[in-house]
Amino acid sequence: MSATLVRRVGELTTNDPTLGDETAMGRLCDAAFVVEEGRVVWVGSDADAPDADTVIDAEHAAVIPGFVDSHTHLVFAGERSDEFEARMQGLHYDGGGITRTVSATRAASESDLVSGTARRVQQLHDGGVTTLEIKSGYELTTDGEVRQLQVAAHFSNDVTWLGAHVVPDEFRHDRHAYLELVTGPMLDACAHHAQWADVFCDRGAFSVDEARHVLTRAKSLGLGLRLHANQLAHGEAIALAVELDAASVDHVTYVEDQDIDLLAAASTVATLLPGAEFSTRSPYSPARRFLDAGVTVALATDCNPGSSYVTSMSFVIALAVRDMMMSPDEALWSATKGGAQALRRDDVGHLGFGARGDFVILDAPRAAHVAYRPGSNLAARVERADR
Amino acid sequence: MSATLVRRVGELTTNDPTLGDETAMGRLCDAAFVVEEGRVVWVGSDADAPDADTVIDAEHAAVIPGFVDSHTHLVFAGERSDEFEARMQGLHYDGGGITRTVSATRAASESDLVSGTARRVQQLHDGGVTTLEIKSGYELTTDGEVRQLQVAAHFSNDVTWLGAHVVPDEFRHDRHAYLELVTGPMLDACAHHAQWADVFCDRGAFSVDEARHVLTRAKSLGLGLRLHANQLAHGEAIALAVELDAASVDHVTYVEDQDIDLLAAASTVATLLPGAEFSTRSPYSPARRFLDAGVTVALATDCNPGSSYVTSMSFVIALAVRDMMMSPDEALWSATKGGAQALRRDDVGHLGFGARGDFVILDAPRAAHVAYRPGSNLAARVERADR
Repeated sequence: MSATLVRRVGELTTNDPTLGDETAMGRLCDAAFVVEEGRVVWVGSDADAPDADTVIDAEHAAVIPGFVDSHTHLVFAGERSDEFEARMQGLHYDGGGITRTVSATRAASESDLVSGTARRVQQLHDGGVTTLEIKSGYELTTDGEVRQLQVAAHFSNDVTWLGAHVVPDEFRHDRHAYLELVTGPMLDACAHHAQWADVFCDRGAFSVDEARHVLTRAKSLGLGLRLHANQLAHGEAIALAVELDAASVDHVTYVEDQDIDLLAAASTVATLLPGAEFSTRSPYSPARRFLDAGVTVALATDCNPGSSYVTSMSFVIALAVRDMMMSPDEALWSATKGGAQALRRDDVGHLGFGARGDFVILDAPRAAHVAYRPGSNLAARVERADR
Repeated sequence: MSATLVRRVGELTTNDPTLGDETAMGRLCDAAFVVEEGRVVWVGSDADAPDADTVIDAEHAAVIPGFVDSHTHLVFAGERSDEFEARMQGLHYDGGGITRTVSATRAASESDLVSGTARRVQQLHDGGVTTLEIKSGYELTTDGEVRQLQVAAHFSNDVTWLGAHVVPDEFRHDRHAYLELVTGPMLDACAHHAQWADVFCDRGAFSVDEARHVLTRAKSLGLGLRLHANQLAHGEAIALAVELDAASVDHVTYVEDQDIDLLAAASTVATLLPGAEFSTRSPYSPARRFLDAGVTVALATDCNPGSSYVTSMSFVIALAVRDMMMSPDEALWSATKGGAQALRRDDVGHLGFGARGDFVILDAPRAAHVAYRPGSNLAARVERADR
């Protein structure tokens, strides 16, 4: 029954519109809050703060909910910096792409996968991430995908099976056989190791019909759905996601007005991944069009060794503000509450009553500093309530 | 006479073209080097490494020269995140600009200025910066500018007097009188506290004739010259810098072909500050045009509370690669050796024989990871030789 009081918070962002300034940010100045048994039980003015066993003095700094990174590919081996270097110089260089990471990951021991993933989870945590999703998709065999999901489960309660990431080399000439594997034995083995199923539905990846087949089967086994959609070209993936009530469509760089209309009327979140667009020098997703239409937007790192080796949500926020025209508050909300909605969770991403006591004390007087001081890690103290 | 051997360096960047692969990066694999009395005395293959009193095992990581940040405004008080927020939302908001920082800095105690500057220097150092320049320009009185230079001298041997930063409010109606102060009593008092003189020569700032007047007088007192040039609009500042043999022209966003020709034939370095362009959502300086013409390019943070609150050279490198089309190697060189040349120093920015033993062990197998993993601080160990 130990309670912790965080007091002298210069600026508290709760993301609870019933609190503070009653905006989406639910912001209070000179505030305090109490976490008891891992949950927020009191929020208010510092002057009214109750006593508690443990007191943390925020010394007038800003406090925000822990970041929710709702899209990562953290379980991998190897690196592809040569491919990145070539791409940045406009050179045509086929290092092998995802297939190369598949080979390296298959060849890695489980303990190497765990330690590599742990290192990246720690980097994310040190930058303020307290909830994260992790996908499989770098082994593409039944046993390998199960192994990836098991490694991911050490670090996350939101584990996503991405057997339909790419068609692996050995099925290059028999795509149909790979889809049979994916929707048959692989999914059967993976389903109880994952909360979510995802498909890379794009030009050169899986078609909308293939994605529908995989996701429908996954849904029948009780998995929640998410979809890599329209990163490389426009397609019908967003309509599919809405049709199947997916929690999130991710990337969504190439979108038409009707896609935006569909999302605005649905509970499917648009998860934007500017780290990928930064690292591949691609156009950014049109965040303003989503926001202005009332679509719920999340921001995530997409951490992976090919297109976005990013382990900082602050960096993602800075890009969203500078290059996607989001305001600092919109970006902060999308990196916390938006990420939580993309995972259909109401216990994280905010600091309203009953929220998990996951918060970040910033080395800054205002949360806007996350975008104002780009490239820095301002997370002075990251607290994550035990589950 | 204590010697330190750094061994098992997976990839060593020396920036000395007589070493290793004999490119500008002077790169060696499986390398080692020895620092004795603060200087590099041996560089070679790990297999040939001599004995030493102290051994640092780089464990196959990449090692680079410490970053040289040749353009900062670190001595300030206050913050302007509200101005940043408004700017990012396209709102017209006159928070006061530089004048606001001038007011806050004038009002700050010397100990507060020292501690604030120390904090920012520490952030830069933790990210791998081992040499930095610091400008005055936020007090704009004779005593105040002397005070700023004295604070800067705690942290840097490259201190720059920037009395001609803006015309302060109290001289708003008598620009001529401020120029008389700047070129008269202020410069007389400041000259022996600084190594460099700088002028903000741009649209809305000081004219080319005014800058010539200030810089000529500063040069006659033995100061080296640098110039804020063409950040906001095209002007004749680059021609002036070359005419006066300034060490560096900084920002240089708006340039004509004849400017580039002038710089290519001169020893004046073009110092690019993409953090400012990121934080003000301005066009980036045309780095490729400079590089392709043979101009020496430096990269720096421009750390200041108005237009670039950036304390990470890695972030600057990532922007230079992504948004200025520099290769990862070009950006690394510009952030080390380029910065040294912008300060006309040959003792830092490289790890050739006789260089100061300032180096960074990266948490990465290759230096290209600095750009490949944007938003992260990969500086696992930063060593700065005592002077």
